[in-house]
Amino acid sequence: MKETNFCKSCDNATVKMYEYAKEMGLETIWDRAQAMQPQCGFGEMGLCCTNCSMGPCRIVKITEDGPKKGICGATEDTIVSRNFARAVAAGAAAHSDHGRDIAQALYHAALEEGDYEVRDKDKLLKIAKEWNVKVENRSLKEIAREVALMALEEFGKPFGKLRFLGRAPEKRRVIWDELGISPRAIDREVVQVMHSTHMGCDADYRNIINQAAKAALSDGWGGSMIGTELSDVIFGTPVPKKTQANLGVLKENYVNIIVHGHEPTLSEAIVIASKDPELIELAQKQGAEGINLAGMCCTGNEITMRHGVPMAGNFFQQELAIATGAVDAMVVDVQCIMPSLSEIVKCYHTKLITTSLKAKVPGAIHMEFDEEKAVEIAKKIVREAVLNYKNRKQKIYIPEEKAQGYVGYSYEAILKILDKVTNSFAHPAGTVKPLVDAMKSGVLRGAAAIVGCNNHKVPHDSGHVTLAKELIKRDILVVTTGCGAHACIKAGLMSMDAVNYCGKGLATCCELLEIPPVLHMGSCVDISRILTLLSDVAKYMGMDISDLPVAAAAPEWMSEKAQSIGLYAVSSGIYVVLGVAPAITGSETVVNYLTSDIEKILGGRFEVESDPVKAAEKIVYHIEMKRKMLGI
Amino acid sequence: MKETNFCKSCDNATVKMYEYAKEMGLETIWDRAQAMQPQCGFGEMGLCCTNCSMGPCRIVKITEDGPKKGICGATEDTIVSRNFARAVAAGAAAHSDHGRDIAQALYHAALEEGDYEVRDKDKLLKIAKEWNVKVENRSLKEIAREVALMALEEFGKPFGKLRFLGRAPEKRRVIWDELGISPRAIDREVVQVMHSTHMGCDADYRNIINQAAKAALSDGWGGSMIGTELSDVIFGTPVPKKTQANLGVLKENYVNIIVHGHEPTLSEAIVIASKDPELIELAQKQGAEGINLAGMCCTGNEITMRHGVPMAGNFFQQELAIATGAVDAMVVDVQCIMPSLSEIVKCYHTKLITTSLKAKVPGAIHMEFDEEKAVEIAKKIVREAVLNYKNRKQKIYIPEEKAQGYVGYSYEAILKILDKVTNSFAHPAGTVKPLVDAMKSGVLRGAAAIVGCNNHKVPHDSGHVTLAKELIKRDILVVTTGCGAHACIKAGLMSMDAVNYCGKGLATCCELLEIPPVLHMGSCVDISRILTLLSDVAKYMGMDISDLPVAAAAPEWMSEKAQSIGLYAVSSGIYVVLGVAPAITGSETVVNYLTSDIEKILGGRFEVESDPVKAAEKIVYHIEMKRKMLGI
Repeated sequence: MKETNFCKSCDNATVKMYEYAKEMGLETIWDRAQAMQPQCGFGEMGLCCTNCSMGPCRIVKITEDGPKKGICGATEDTIVSRNFARAVAAGAAAHSDHGRDIAQALYHAALEEGDYEVRDKDKLLKIAKEWNVKVENRSLKEIAREVALMALEEFGKPFGKLRFLGRAPEKRRVIWDELGISPRAIDREVVQVMHSTHMGCDADYRNIINQAAKAALSDGWGGSMIGTELSDVIFGTPVPKKTQANLGVLKENYVNIIVHGHEPTLSEAIVIASKDPELIELAQKQGAEGINLAGMCCTGNEITMRHGVPMAGNFFQQELAIATGAVDAMVVDVQCIMPSLSEIVKCYHTKLITTSLKAKVPGAIHMEFDEEKAVEIAKKIVREAVLNYKNRKQKIYIPEEKAQGYVGYSYEAILKILDKVTNSFAHPAGTVKPLVDAMKSGVLRGAAAIVGCNNHKVPHDSGHVTLAKELIKRDILVVTTGCGAHACIKAGLMSMDAVNYCGKGLATCCELLEIPPVLHMGSCVDISRILTLLSDVAKYMGMDISDLPVAAAAPEWMSEKAQSIGLYAVSSGIYVVLGVAPAITGSETVVNYLTSDIEKILGGRFEVESDPVKAAEKIVYHIEMKRKMLGI
Repeated sequence: MKETNFCKSCDNATVKMYEYAKEMGLETIWDRAQAMQPQCGFGEMGLCCTNCSMGPCRIVKITEDGPKKGICGATEDTIVSRNFARAVAAGAAAHSDHGRDIAQALYHAALEEGDYEVRDKDKLLKIAKEWNVKVENRSLKEIAREVALMALEEFGKPFGKLRFLGRAPEKRRVIWDELGISPRAIDREVVQVMHSTHMGCDADYRNIINQAAKAALSDGWGGSMIGTELSDVIFGTPVPKKTQANLGVLKENYVNIIVHGHEPTLSEAIVIASKDPELIELAQKQGAEGINLAGMCCTGNEITMRHGVPMAGNFFQQELAIATGAVDAMVVDVQCIMPSLSEIVKCYHTKLITTSLKAKVPGAIHMEFDEEKAVEIAKKIVREAVLNYKNRKQKIYIPEEKAQGYVGYSYEAILKILDKVTNSFAHPAGTVKPLVDAMKSGVLRGAAAIVGCNNHKVPHDSGHVTLAKELIKRDILVVTTGCGAHACIKAGLMSMDAVNYCGKGLATCCELLEIPPVLHMGSCVDISRILTLLSDVAKYMGMDISDLPVAAAAPEWMSEKAQSIGLYAVSSGIYVVLGVAPAITGSETVVNYLTSDIEKILGGRFEVESDPVKAAEKIVYHIEMKRKMLGI
């Protein structure tokens, strides 16, 4: 672990760039985090309520004196659970709104001649089958259109439950139905949480958390799953490919464009535009050798999974990328875009280009994206970057760090890989049987997902990387998404060399299957891939997800989306270890419920453990316990 | 103004009951408000951000030192506008979810033989016509079913805009379209605000407020309007009737049932159940003289508007009602139900009965309402109350205050009243012409809506009552809803005697039309009635709503719903005076925008004025200025 001033990171490029930025007099996230200390204890504990203008109300816990109830009479349990539920609702809203945009893109692709098309016919037909869409004697566009419409209706249909719930094991669906938390329409569940956490509505923490769980499930098995599945239909389902990662992927003599944000609709068009011969020629006219596209955060994950586009870095590196002086344009859409970018670009020639009506940034150039003219707009954006190359004035400093690794492990890709051993051991093709066999035999002890963000409360990347290393050492296969995926690839854990960190069993599996021990499964919405995978494993074993020797961890989470993900994972029966405590510690009751009692109801639970080594131990304990219960 | 300890109120019954509660050792909202002082300045100014777990972040304004940006780089403008937008979204969610329940009730009414029916055929046919629903050769149930389905689809349809926007004057619709804030589906707008206020999305305060305006409009012209209009279809459109108001409506020797909350679906069924001969007989067997039903808050408004059921009091009186010792059951559904009720009932025999899955309260009895078995459940609830009569142990103390007044001034009722002068002066029947003529002639200077809640930051009821008196004195007709309506009727402003407070012009109008100078237009969702009225007046005059000599005020607002109402009013072109500052004062930019610049864009704006006398002066100034611009 390197550290300098306030910046702690296990990523050398980050530490170096932070030092460099400091020298240049730039302010970055670590400085602002330091300046914010001490942070408000009421807020950290979730004990502050601003849900009506009689407030703010704060519950005092540390002394006997001071209010123990809000002005309306809300207790700490009520306030804490309401705040938690609203965070989940906001996260579910963000993910699901992303899913809606993808469904709209498919609708456009199906409707007319646009820039999108159906690239994965098999996936479209699979979804059509799941949703009882007639496929015989219909064109692909007709089928795509009906699927897209049905997907759009998932957000607001007045009756019924979400269609993708059908993917879950039956035992799981029964649990949801009995608890009344099977989501109906996606938007409705978010709205209901906002309603029931309104002043004078729900005061019962369990009921509030149930409603939050419903909203969270509408994300995981709704918005996110629609986002993932339809992205695959339009842009292709990822297959393994090699890529590079870290700030070192920027190239001094190229026009560097970073796409940053979440939705692939824009970035896919930018991938096309960046290969346009005219634009490349224009770049060369400006004196550049060509156009170098790199991705940041989840946009980075989306386009590396499908095109092998290099990954420039994760959440905490976005300002540092600009500080290299080599970024001619940073193109952003929605989510996880630091508003500070518009400050830092003032010191550089870099153009910050916003593209979504949902995320404008004062001081940025706004070039609104339109799905109907995707490539046309993307070309305009790329041209803007290309023409900006000549405006470089500052010294360029690109750290040399650039890790190699394999990405693109969609569920379908994993199944295909498993087919290799299927052939060698006469397993049926296209099933999870080899995976189950490896787990049953104990060669593989289990699997864990490492997901989530960066957060100044945890040394940058080290939560992800340490945990991943500790787990693979113990023969636990790791799958990862989001900023966790960036951290792991940068640390070399997605290369075949990482097999050296593995326990003997996992190493054998990796070598046999020719996979790294940490599998890149995509962006944050792609955690839905993990749900589908786990469901199929559970169904294959005739069990529920909660019976499996698996766990999830978000060692450095910071976003409300992560709270939604955490709760849908718990509600799907998964044990979830958080590296940062959510703002619930003000209520022991809520803490006990979410970290213990909820397991009796939903099969999953939260655990908070800031030390990644201890987190690994807890995950191992959980997995071994589950193995014992399975008798394997 | 009376005051005692911390309780300031212009309502004698409230002050007396507060004193009595104090004597009894009970804690009420005033005590908790006092215990909460001082309230957090960061929260009050909207400068605290908890939208991600890197926070809480607080912007320090009062000293040079201290952070001026959040850890992500969010400025005070971003943080303040995001907090404001989320409050609006929560308010819109609450109102709209109420509207959805009403649409579902109509769907049930249309589908089978349930307890609901179509009581206002004319209104159903009017809506059917507006929405292009075929009415020829179809039964009322068929039409109702299609209208209900279309209403349900307004919450989540994937394409198009809200149908009720068609009611607005054309000029207004053009403004909305050009600004891109014409709401699409109701839920979607709430979700989009939650998404775009998520960490790393929108940082542009104007764009954020635009999106909040869209969500607010989806409340006013969407959820709320659906709530009002379909409630009228099912339960009948209110017509003027006499009623009584204040805690004095409770009767010592009767089984007293208070219905409290918002949605009429439950309370309408309770009205029926409370008249059930068997239950009345059962009450008499318990030693009571009968069953006395009274309404509180907006539920009170709903059932007094349609049945003349006495109004027991407003938001700040809910605990006091229980302290009378005479309430055998308080039956609640959603919104504005103080969680403290479950504490105070512990000291009494009163049963607190929750009925909605969206609003459980620990310690209450939960008897879940089901639209399909409305009266059956209502009877069970009433029985529970009746059987509880014999458990009274405490001393009963019912203050004698009980005001008389007229309620039930729906827009349709107002049109009918105007027809009186139509006949006498040969105006066309069923139009707003007589109202416009009275305004044009200057007999009536204009009209103002007084709406909203109670808030300890304003002496109870006095914001509403003082403002209303000041306005009617100056020949400004007042319409009121919500807790404002309760305040006004208690103060005698809905009786014909109130004409004595009026200026000469308004007095003449009131006497001619036989109406009080303060018109009860319903519950908080019924502010949509005011929108419809103003639209028709504007359309009649060939103008926009923003051209009219009208204003709105929320002198004692506290809920997020009020923030949504305020913003949809401003976005509809209305000048809105708030008696309590929203949590926006941390950003001068946002304050300037919402109180000034927004008027150039949307025609309406906010004003903050805590002194109701000064608020009246500002409203008069605004109205006279509008008159001048109209040349009248």
